[in-house]
Amino acid sequence: MPATRNRRIVLAARPVGEPKDADFRLEETAVPVPAEGEVLLRTIYLSLDPYQRGRMNAGPSYAEPVEVGEVMEGGTVSEVVTSRVNDLQPGDIVLGHTGWQEYVVAEGETLQKVDPTLAPISTALGVLGMPGMTAYTGLLNIGRPKAGETVVVSSAAGAVGSAVGQIAKILGCRAVGIAGGQAKCDFVVHELGFDACVDHHKAGLAEELEAACPNGIDVDFENVGGKVFEAALPLMNPFGRIPVCGLIAHYNATELPPGPDKVPLVMRSILFKRLTFRGFIVTDFLEQQPEFKKDMGEWVREGKVKYKEDIVEGIENAVAAFKRLFTGQNFGKLLVQVGPTPEKL
Amino acid sequence: MPATRNRRIVLAARPVGEPKDADFRLEETAVPVPAEGEVLLRTIYLSLDPYQRGRMNAGPSYAEPVEVGEVMEGGTVSEVVTSRVNDLQPGDIVLGHTGWQEYVVAEGETLQKVDPTLAPISTALGVLGMPGMTAYTGLLNIGRPKAGETVVVSSAAGAVGSAVGQIAKILGCRAVGIAGGQAKCDFVVHELGFDACVDHHKAGLAEELEAACPNGIDVDFENVGGKVFEAALPLMNPFGRIPVCGLIAHYNATELPPGPDKVPLVMRSILFKRLTFRGFIVTDFLEQQPEFKKDMGEWVREGKVKYKEDIVEGIENAVAAFKRLFTGQNFGKLLVQVGPTPEKL
Repeated sequence: MPATRNRRIVLAARPVGEPKDADFRLEETAVPVPAEGEVLLRTIYLSLDPYQRGRMNAGPSYAEPVEVGEVMEGGTVSEVVTSRVNDLQPGDIVLGHTGWQEYVVAEGETLQKVDPTLAPISTALGVLGMPGMTAYTGLLNIGRPKAGETVVVSSAAGAVGSAVGQIAKILGCRAVGIAGGQAKCDFVVHELGFDACVDHHKAGLAEELEAACPNGIDVDFENVGGKVFEAALPLMNPFGRIPVCGLIAHYNATELPPGPDKVPLVMRSILFKRLTFRGFIVTDFLEQQPEFKKDMGEWVREGKVKYKEDIVEGIENAVAAFKRLFTGQNFGKLLVQVGPTPEKL
Repeated sequence: MPATRNRRIVLAARPVGEPKDADFRLEETAVPVPAEGEVLLRTIYLSLDPYQRGRMNAGPSYAEPVEVGEVMEGGTVSEVVTSRVNDLQPGDIVLGHTGWQEYVVAEGETLQKVDPTLAPISTALGVLGMPGMTAYTGLLNIGRPKAGETVVVSSAAGAVGSAVGQIAKILGCRAVGIAGGQAKCDFVVHELGFDACVDHHKAGLAEELEAACPNGIDVDFENVGGKVFEAALPLMNPFGRIPVCGLIAHYNATELPPGPDKVPLVMRSILFKRLTFRGFIVTDFLEQQPEFKKDMGEWVREGKVKYKEDIVEGIENAVAAFKRLFTGQNFGKLLVQVGPTPEKL
């Protein structure tokens, strides 16, 4: 019997600092009906990612904000329930950007078919999806690591960071992670094969990182900012590259923190060491998606790139799960299992 | 009658903050005698440049420091007095890096012949030399301005900045300078042909710069740092480029100045706007010297690139002149006329 009720999470208020439960609202609506050119989708997996914090703010970031009262945005893997699109059939699995809800109507051209025979469908939101491509394009285009160089990546146990370090290893580099807690560091070294991983929960981050990088740092793939970035900066080698992918340490900031003005330090490092800093988001390199899919698909199949997922059940738990991204409590690519995966997959 | 006494300026002490007279010493020595493979040079022009401040410090910068008691380093245009090198003759004019002194012995292979029929020989230290090539390579390789884009350059009346803006105009860009004082701004706009120039001595630098850049900034060629950089940063357009060429505002700093910590602001700008910051020094692009000489030589001959020199007489005035670089009192490429230019030139 077809479902008639849809549950979804809307932005109830713009968070100030860390998002609170009251900033979101769980709503029930009728399941919508597709028009010509549209499909009705049932969400299987919803991706939770740090960039979504930026969408909750009114100010311009690299995309339009979610309006108060609107459904929170996010990438999804869904099953087609009913279709009024020629090349999509009920039962097809698709990748979309349909947000924090159980059912949604979407236009056919906004969806990409996912082949469930190639890899688990959840990977379309992780290692074979946006986070994996972020790692791949940022490291190859901006980091440009050469064999023998040292690549440091923060959030090393996360969806992007874990791929960055493993690609660096494939390219013959020394891969050094920074992660929060011994369990993540053990995973990064023993499961993912990084050469070292430094725990930023412990004291002496700068000294530990220096010890882990005896030849300095050639590429700092920056996911965090704050004290983690400040530990890496002094260790950068001349002509080092710093792809600036994320700054999760700052996303909840309501004002610039007090302290000594380190802009001269940053600028002097850029000048004297001839560093390159370059911000990017994955869509800047959209044309490289075919190469990414080919390379990363092979690496995952061959076991050269491993991935870890952290899956939470139920759309009603999305907010609590999202908040864990900022406390470092998630471990692996954070997904919400919104509805059951079809048994045949 | 050949000279027998050489006057030279040595570093007497490492300056703390702004260089003082007592940090230097004028010495007299015998004129040295060249060995096989060497020439005796008489300095005509000595180039004074901000980078020389860094050489006075003990800490590593992008080159080795001058030791206390050693002759201060600097680029020179000199006349060959006596030669024990096959392809150099007395009377030849050469470009070298022979420092703050009247006479010096140099190895032939450290010198480049200057053709006095192509341009005034002093330009080998300015628009056709290191400062001009710094402008050319930094702007073309890192700034990569496209026609119609806005290029901002600080120290716009200086040796590097004046060339940056004029090259930007040749490429079809809007060129906006930042300079200290009305006289320099007038020169930048009326003599050099920039579209606008903002006086950083006046209040309201940020607002003035914003008004001069109605379409934002695509390239900020950074020579200064400090408040000048902070005025430009918020105006950067997405995918903007920031060649970091110099930070004269910081060179005399003895400690990082107090104030709010703006690193998150810088990093967020890099990320959200996908900016590229890249430090460079001219020798990073040494292989482009032939293109530079061809292009800039033509531009200068055709009057498309103009230059201004600020010439001080006598090696004994080098220290006083050098100090003017940091107060903004020089106006044009700062040179010391150490000895007379041969009459035939």
